Amino acid sequence: MSIPMSRAAATSDRTIGKVFLVGAGPGDPELLTMKAARLIAEAEVIVHDRLVSADILATAPASAERIDVGKRAGNHPVPQEEINEILIRQAMRGRTVVRLKGGDPFIFGRGSEEALALRAAGIRCDVVPGITAAQGCAAATGVPLTHRGLANSVRFITGHCRADTPLEFDWSALADPATTLVIYMGAANIAEISDQLRRHGMPGTTPVLAIANGTMRHERRIVSQLAGIVRDVSAARLDGPLLFIIGEVVSLYASGEVCPALQSIMSAPGRQLRELAHA
Amino acid sequence: MSIPMSRAAATSDRTIGKVFLVGAGPGDPELLTMKAARLIAEAEVIVHDRLVSADILATAPASAERIDVGKRAGNHPVPQEEINEILIRQAMRGRTVVRLKGGDPFIFGRGSEEALALRAAGIRCDVVPGITAAQGCAAATGVPLTHRGLANSVRFITGHCRADTPLEFDWSALADPATTLVIYMGAANIAEISDQLRRHGMPGTTPVLAIANGTMRHERRIVSQLAGIVRDVSAARLDGPLLFIIGEVVSLYASGEVCPALQSIMSAPGRQLRELAHA
Repeated sequence: MSIPMSRAAATSDRTIGKVFLVGAGPGDPELLTMKAARLIAEAEVIVHDRLVSADILATAPASAERIDVGKRAGNHPVPQEEINEILIRQAMRGRTVVRLKGGDPFIFGRGSEEALALRAAGIRCDVVPGITAAQGCAAATGVPLTHRGLANSVRFITGHCRADTPLEFDWSALADPATTLVIYMGAANIAEISDQLRRHGMPGTTPVLAIANGTMRHERRIVSQLAGIVRDVSAARLDGPLLFIIGEVVSLYASGEVCPALQSIMSAPGRQLRELAHA
Repeated sequence: MSIPMSRAAATSDRTIGKVFLVGAGPGDPELLTMKAARLIAEAEVIVHDRLVSADILATAPASAERIDVGKRAGNHPVPQEEINEILIRQAMRGRTVVRLKGGDPFIFGRGSEEALALRAAGIRCDVVPGITAAQGCAAATGVPLTHRGLANSVRFITGHCRADTPLEFDWSALADPATTLVIYMGAANIAEISDQLRRHGMPGTTPVLAIANGTMRHERRIVSQLAGIVRDVSAARLDGPLLFIIGEVVSLYASGEVCPALQSIMSAPGRQLRELAHA
């Protein structure tokens, strides 16, 4: 009886497609991984949301069907269960599906829920990591996420939560001065977050970087302090998904090529090295 | 007087090269970003360490000079100050320098120290993010770094510290059950880490994934629990740089294509969806 069964399985395998859960990175198409770029180029269906930039979608072949699950009907995004169903249905039709998600599929963004639904339905799913917003913004601004003597750890949290539920964090653990804190989707809750962090011992003078549309042409950023960040974000009218980097590493932010404060601190070795280089 | 000065500056700019501080990702060459791949192909000098895989170095042009700063003379790596000097000296010679670092240059690995030294010496330095080991290992194993209801936050720490200094962490903050904890370079200190976490309230049954050479052909992994991880890593003789993922998300680990436990939990909706797909 085993032969007919394996034959059936083999036939069924050939007709079922595969889903690639792919991180699209923070926005700049050059920050796609080589693997993501290859899979997009080979895709028969691309299921994407609103965090995937138009520049990236433009790299997909014209023949690929694009399904936008970030489109809002009456201001509501497509529910997660329906997205899962779309992925399963497309794979069941034997197609190669690229599920393209902003950032990294396994850092926020509910990628793991999609992976589990696919697994449960018996559909092969490969995950391709992507540059997450924190990394893109750090590289673009020169603010490192860790730095000896300033931050021995980095932590990512999301300021976005289920409707009608409060933010649930161990605030005193979050207020650790030796950890860089990165807040994704923090625009709606930055007032509560900055308030709670200060109440739990983080100094109001802690530097904060806020970035909208990080790594993209229309990127905008401000540097402030924990006590003034709510006012400054509002005054600067930053919009789009906002990322906040909170911690002493933000003091390394350099708006120009060479930070004057640093140059004065480090000019002596710099000069020595310059002489060395010309020796 | 301003015209001669700008001319001098312009001349000097032309003769000074530029340094790209580039993340090489976790090991798989396809996990390089497009930007990293382009810069490697255009490099005149590549300064790399031992975490950059041979497969990636092989993508550089034959004409590019390779400087291995991970090579150990008498078991000592090249000191950081000397690496900084090499980068500055090469740029001062007008060359395009790619400083290639395993993972992401701004998550551990002292990339920010190199960026500061370059800035202080007046040398242009661009940072290109890379897929960090935590992301590569998460994608390869199907273990997400965050998951609704299991982990609303993820935290990266390094188990490696300056010689003769103890690990300095706020252990009770690290023992947060709602946060996925990722430990880089943890092999030397996993005994102390698992001990401290349990002393500060993390259950000994907390699942732990240990991965050596994540995303590479010779990747090896074990799944264990906090109480048994030291014994199990030793018994499995995992070597090379080790990454640990600690937290409830590890319970989602699936060794095969379809996890049996999941299939039994979710088979009903899976069947419905399969019927839906064929409708």
